[in-house]
Amino acid sequence: MQTPKKIAIVGSGLVGSLLGIYLKKRGHTVHVYDRSPDIRKINFSGRSINLVLSNRGIKTLQDIGLEKEVLAIGIPVDRRAIHVGQDTVNEQLYGKNGEVIYSISRGLLNKKMVDLAEKAGVEFFFEEKVWDVDLTTATISIGETERGEWITKDYDLTFGADGAFSRIRHRMQRQSMFNYSQEFLNIGYKELHIPANADGTHKINKNSLHIWPRGNFMLMALANLDGSFTCTLFMPHDGENSFASLKTTEQLVAFFAKNFPDTKEVIPDLVEDFFKNPTSYLVTMKCFPWTFSDKVALIGDASHAIVPFYGHGMNSGFEDITVLEEMMEKYGDDWANLLNDYENSRKPNADAIAELSYRNFTEMSAKTADAKFLLQKKIEKWFSDKHPDKWMPLYSRVTFSLQPYSEALAIGDFQNKIMEEVMQMENIEEKWNSEEVENKIIDLLK
Amino acid sequence: MQTPKKIAIVGSGLVGSLLGIYLKKRGHTVHVYDRSPDIRKINFSGRSINLVLSNRGIKTLQDIGLEKEVLAIGIPVDRRAIHVGQDTVNEQLYGKNGEVIYSISRGLLNKKMVDLAEKAGVEFFFEEKVWDVDLTTATISIGETERGEWITKDYDLTFGADGAFSRIRHRMQRQSMFNYSQEFLNIGYKELHIPANADGTHKINKNSLHIWPRGNFMLMALANLDGSFTCTLFMPHDGENSFASLKTTEQLVAFFAKNFPDTKEVIPDLVEDFFKNPTSYLVTMKCFPWTFSDKVALIGDASHAIVPFYGHGMNSGFEDITVLEEMMEKYGDDWANLLNDYENSRKPNADAIAELSYRNFTEMSAKTADAKFLLQKKIEKWFSDKHPDKWMPLYSRVTFSLQPYSEALAIGDFQNKIMEEVMQMENIEEKWNSEEVENKIIDLLK
Repeated sequence: MQTPKKIAIVGSGLVGSLLGIYLKKRGHTVHVYDRSPDIRKINFSGRSINLVLSNRGIKTLQDIGLEKEVLAIGIPVDRRAIHVGQDTVNEQLYGKNGEVIYSISRGLLNKKMVDLAEKAGVEFFFEEKVWDVDLTTATISIGETERGEWITKDYDLTFGADGAFSRIRHRMQRQSMFNYSQEFLNIGYKELHIPANADGTHKINKNSLHIWPRGNFMLMALANLDGSFTCTLFMPHDGENSFASLKTTEQLVAFFAKNFPDTKEVIPDLVEDFFKNPTSYLVTMKCFPWTFSDKVALIGDASHAIVPFYGHGMNSGFEDITVLEEMMEKYGDDWANLLNDYENSRKPNADAIAELSYRNFTEMSAKTADAKFLLQKKIEKWFSDKHPDKWMPLYSRVTFSLQPYSEALAIGDFQNKIMEEVMQMENIEEKWNSEEVENKIIDLLK
Repeated sequence: MQTPKKIAIVGSGLVGSLLGIYLKKRGHTVHVYDRSPDIRKINFSGRSINLVLSNRGIKTLQDIGLEKEVLAIGIPVDRRAIHVGQDTVNEQLYGKNGEVIYSISRGLLNKKMVDLAEKAGVEFFFEEKVWDVDLTTATISIGETERGEWITKDYDLTFGADGAFSRIRHRMQRQSMFNYSQEFLNIGYKELHIPANADGTHKINKNSLHIWPRGNFMLMALANLDGSFTCTLFMPHDGENSFASLKTTEQLVAFFAKNFPDTKEVIPDLVEDFFKNPTSYLVTMKCFPWTFSDKVALIGDASHAIVPFYGHGMNSGFEDITVLEEMMEKYGDDWANLLNDYENSRKPNADAIAELSYRNFTEMSAKTADAKFLLQKKIEKWFSDKHPDKWMPLYSRVTFSLQPYSEALAIGDFQNKIMEEVMQMENIEEKWNSEEVENKIIDLLK
């Protein structure tokens, strides 16, 4: 049991809302602040990538009895559909036992989470801008503008769940011994849209994550409940094949006709979407420490913002809550040690998923179209099917297991070294499923 | 020639003052702002490491005719004196041709630079706190406190020379695509003091950089003009042999008696200095870009803050000015391209000196007491003496040449690989200066 505290959560996003439910369930008073209006009352679109919910995130929902409500608004996705040419689509199942991830629209899920949190007794304060926090007292400062008048609100504990550009972290960053990095990718992204058919059905297979890999750029599509798809174009900000190079309707239409010919039928509003929707940025943010005594703690994107290419932004944020919950169970009212153990145990895993996510852009945009890479994946799958006790592919480890990310990364690197040797075997293309290859892998695993 | 501009420099430190002189000489109006009082009117001591001025910094002074005035307040240092035990001091000359670096007190030099800048016509505004800059107009905002009232001042161009915790950079950091990192070392430092003898002479050799290397901590001493030495104790913040472990006079005295017995006579006020002077932090800060169109630019520590173990903080900052001067010569009034070329050409070298400085803590604190390492240095020196055209040691490259830091680092890494092989030769201790070793190095250099 924990003594009830008065807790502020800054940020009513996915992690903030779900954290609120967990804290409320333990008897705390929970106030969630957000600088934006109530997401349930606004039109949310135009600058998002669809979310992918997988086992780690599902576990956090399950532990508090919410997985059914959330999965009801998701669409199961069991494979990658790789659009390599005009009419050629290669499919790769994600798991061998029918494992799925869920495509969920960010707006829809966020509304649902706020609803669920409110039902659980969490109080929300929208359009309240938190600019600062006193690290020694957890008191937050709220005001219309950064330089205008502020009022203060006292709490026992304040969580910064306010995303990659967190104000709570901004305050922590001004201490000595606070390590911090933000690194932008030269890849930006833009939301596009595949509408539903007239009868509400999906225009392409809704149970696939669609990828059009084109080297240093790619298009992606994930299904929505209403029959539409949210598409995301990932591309360099400048240089050849970049957002900067597509300035006119003619350039855009020619670019799509050349690179994504099979999207012509399914993205009718390409030109309007492209020039209306903003080009967004991708950043990897790392920092440490995440907490200050028993007063302030960062969680989710505020403590570790990652690029979206592994589909683990939300899942890793939700897993933060699972770790925090374990610590609440273990430490009870000893919040200083609770938060200390939380940040120390979680940090290596946050770093690992950042690294995995960063690497996965190259895998998705370039390697999925590479014959050698596809053969490697085929060998891994074949060996894993024969020896499930000896080999779980990295993607499965990260997405379908609950193994700490840092272990998954380390084992993935070890497996990759083995596969590098295997791929160098003579005539590997012919003998890929031979006893020789099988024995070689078994040998290298020793 | 350049059309005269109205230029603000934020920060009246070494780089800000010298940059002011350069800009003034080109006919610009130059206003230097500093949040602190005029350094010439205050007592400056207690939290500094003595500066080391070497060839890169001297070149920047020389190009504008100031090297003589500055060198007059420096003390030439031609060797390391390594205090390995009670009475054992090993000496290593820095260069083979009498090359020297100069030990200069930071306070003294800063006063001198402000004097010289004022004489050149640079205007100084002390105790004026610049909190913000408008990146599109170069207008700066000044006020008593961060949250209080501000006034604005218009300029054509604003330089941030305001150090590792630059406010000008703080504004730039809030843009998209601004990469930034700050990483604190777990090593802190504290200033201690060796006073002059009664007759004004130095108690130990003033022409040596004194090091007491003790593994993960060390003491260092650099001479001052007045016969004293500024000592710096570098040590982990916590753990064994740390600042946290020295809480009482007894602990401190016992620690020095055990680890630095030969300092007992020369640091009479150890206890008072230690508990009075603050423990300071060491940070490596990297960022990019450094400039915003033709309006705002970072320079010195504001763009690349490094740890002090190579003695290149000031030298690299001064070299920034040399690069900027080259660009002013090349681009004239085309400030946008001028600043763009400045940041692009300078950034790899800033990264390289950051890396070299970081690595040098281990070299100074641990390796200088390691027999194997000393033998390696001896072989390098011997080979370099025989083949000056084939081998310049890394330290000389960095400190006595003007070769770009990034090239020095790359060649240093290459040389180190060669020396690793050489050190693994059988009986290298006996045959270190044999023809066999000489030929081996020549061979590996091919």
